[in-house]
Amino acid sequence: MADETSAPTLHALSIAEVDRPSSQLAKFGVDDPLHLDSGKSIAPWQIAYETYGELNADKSNAVLICHALTGDQYVASNNPVTGKPGWWERMVGPGRPIDTDKYFVLCANVLGGCLGTTGPASINPATGKAYAVSMPVVTIRDMVRAQAKLVDRFGIDTLFAVVGGSMGGMQVLQWAASYPERVFAAVPIATGARHSSQNIAFHEVGRQAIMADPDWCEGAYIAEDKRPLKGLAVARMAAHITYMSDSSLHQKFGRNLQDREDLTFGFDADFQIESYLRHQGMTFVDRFDANSYLYVTRAMDYFDLAAEFGSLPLAFTGTTTRFCVMSFTSDWLFPTSESRNIVKALNAAAANVSFVEVDSDRGHDAFLLDVPEMFSTIRGFITGAARARGIPAPGGAN
Amino acid sequence: MADETSAPTLHALSIAEVDRPSSQLAKFGVDDPLHLDSGKSIAPWQIAYETYGELNADKSNAVLICHALTGDQYVASNNPVTGKPGWWERMVGPGRPIDTDKYFVLCANVLGGCLGTTGPASINPATGKAYAVSMPVVTIRDMVRAQAKLVDRFGIDTLFAVVGGSMGGMQVLQWAASYPERVFAAVPIATGARHSSQNIAFHEVGRQAIMADPDWCEGAYIAEDKRPLKGLAVARMAAHITYMSDSSLHQKFGRNLQDREDLTFGFDADFQIESYLRHQGMTFVDRFDANSYLYVTRAMDYFDLAAEFGSLPLAFTGTTTRFCVMSFTSDWLFPTSESRNIVKALNAAAANVSFVEVDSDRGHDAFLLDVPEMFSTIRGFITGAARARGIPAPGGAN
Repeated sequence: MADETSAPTLHALSIAEVDRPSSQLAKFGVDDPLHLDSGKSIAPWQIAYETYGELNADKSNAVLICHALTGDQYVASNNPVTGKPGWWERMVGPGRPIDTDKYFVLCANVLGGCLGTTGPASINPATGKAYAVSMPVVTIRDMVRAQAKLVDRFGIDTLFAVVGGSMGGMQVLQWAASYPERVFAAVPIATGARHSSQNIAFHEVGRQAIMADPDWCEGAYIAEDKRPLKGLAVARMAAHITYMSDSSLHQKFGRNLQDREDLTFGFDADFQIESYLRHQGMTFVDRFDANSYLYVTRAMDYFDLAAEFGSLPLAFTGTTTRFCVMSFTSDWLFPTSESRNIVKALNAAAANVSFVEVDSDRGHDAFLLDVPEMFSTIRGFITGAARARGIPAPGGAN
Repeated sequence: MADETSAPTLHALSIAEVDRPSSQLAKFGVDDPLHLDSGKSIAPWQIAYETYGELNADKSNAVLICHALTGDQYVASNNPVTGKPGWWERMVGPGRPIDTDKYFVLCANVLGGCLGTTGPASINPATGKAYAVSMPVVTIRDMVRAQAKLVDRFGIDTLFAVVGGSMGGMQVLQWAASYPERVFAAVPIATGARHSSQNIAFHEVGRQAIMADPDWCEGAYIAEDKRPLKGLAVARMAAHITYMSDSSLHQKFGRNLQDREDLTFGFDADFQIESYLRHQGMTFVDRFDANSYLYVTRAMDYFDLAAEFGSLPLAFTGTTTRFCVMSFTSDWLFPTSESRNIVKALNAAAANVSFVEVDSDRGHDAFLLDVPEMFSTIRGFITGAARARGIPAPGGAN
């Protein structure tokens, strides 16, 4: 707790990092615009990505990892902005369930993000200034469309697997629905086929917190050399509560006081949970752009596969993709009922689907944490799918 | 929905209403200070209240209603600030479960509130300015201590019943623990004997939203002739989500769009839930003071009867009060487990207790809504308790 509860100074992600990340970049010129669901398009544009492992000769071993709301492409390597290890190093790496000794893993920053892929903090070449809120609003399908163009660059026809949790899981579902022939196996984790009313509500609170900050400047804070750090921190605090469970908060913090024996009868952080949340808010603003937060939350809100296809089973009609759907018992942001809806639709579409509800008290964040049942399940599913596809098993056995 | 989704202009509760409400006032002079848990005291001070029905000759028919976080003393009559009906008119009134033809009902604005009882927006006579954050932080026990002084003014030794939901329920429990001989019957609804880590977390988000608003002016907004309306609105939006259930939000709003057929690909309120939340935020600032919000949420955070007494059963040792504890199935802010803890402690203390978990999908707000099982249960409990106490039944039968 000690390092989590100090009070770092609020500063912000530098714009240099936004447009010139240390990642690899796929650039698309004015002659190759990205057409968006809004009817608008964007060009030039770019996508920042990391890769791990080697693509095999027949390009049959590519796994696309899709990141969550505030995730990034550094799935299994240090994030250069935060200096922290990759966000899913327990899942992806040598000998891990998604084994980089065997698979070629690709992870791209989402469209609308702020770590190298075109987003609202990117420079609009037409004006020489950041797009800010003049960037078209994007959808999960737009994110996936951008990823598909990146996959094309690698000459990969069919991804062996597409895997992701939360908003990453939405992208997995969108991949399977939009490009069924390009996805051999799909692992949507802790997600839903549409964003619920309650989830939209929490996102709206976060957006209102950002937009209420006078330093948001109607979106033009970069041009004004300001940052809506306080609003963004409040947005993160509200969201962070939804990523945990009542039980995990109780176990981790309870009503424990922060570095003191008695209540202070004031408004400083008396309770550890308060210090923890403040820390979450303050460190978040160091690595995330406020307008990106607006765009990416909006993309999640807009996600509704059933609306797109007329019904959820119709999103998966005729699919040959193998699905492994996973939820966590204490996840109240994407409760198991959301996964069940996906599974029902997949069954109605006669898809090949397995479903696992993992017992965990860690809430929505369980997919990012050390949950052995998740790892063993995904290891098993991926290994079986690799066998079915004829990718050699580790050590050369088939 | 139509009236709920218009966009009223942000304005604010006038300070005249804070110190000079249309309610009755009990004033306590400099010679009669209110001693607080913080070790400080406040004087002069006042408490604003409403009464309904008539106190009988032996003063045995008084029911104290304790209001929730943003409630007020207008339990069964129009609120002069909002013009809206009393907040619990279904529960309190002639022929209602708490029948004002039979009982004398008293409801006071809580200490720290903003509708007439001394709170941070009240004028500090020593300075001629609003206390703002120089007012001592208060606790639930302080609120109850103030109410006890009001009850003394009426010459009432023992209240027939103390009834309240949420923070009102905390006051009910505190009454029963602090003044067992003064409470014949207690009805704590949708509450807990301590505020959970998750609940403290949500309150902290709200406070941070208020304090992040530059118009909060470090608390001194009244002196600066400003109001942190945007921060307060965000705080209310976040809190409001916790008062409903996922299911009630889904049923009420789902993913329905607001007055349009298609997504706008922007950050205006596309979804009805967004308009609804914005409206909740914007109308709240018309009737509530931002510093009061800090104080009253803090009082809830600090509430922990087990900590006060050493253990929860010890809070009720030897009690002769009759308890009716009530929870709602879909309440995730004060889930049934919190009520069970109270009931276990009461049983351990050999108290007279009945417990009802009411089936409702309306979330925490169920206690304010039209939930017939709640009314029939409380009517039955109150009628039985009145019989036990020897208060004549309506119509004169015993």
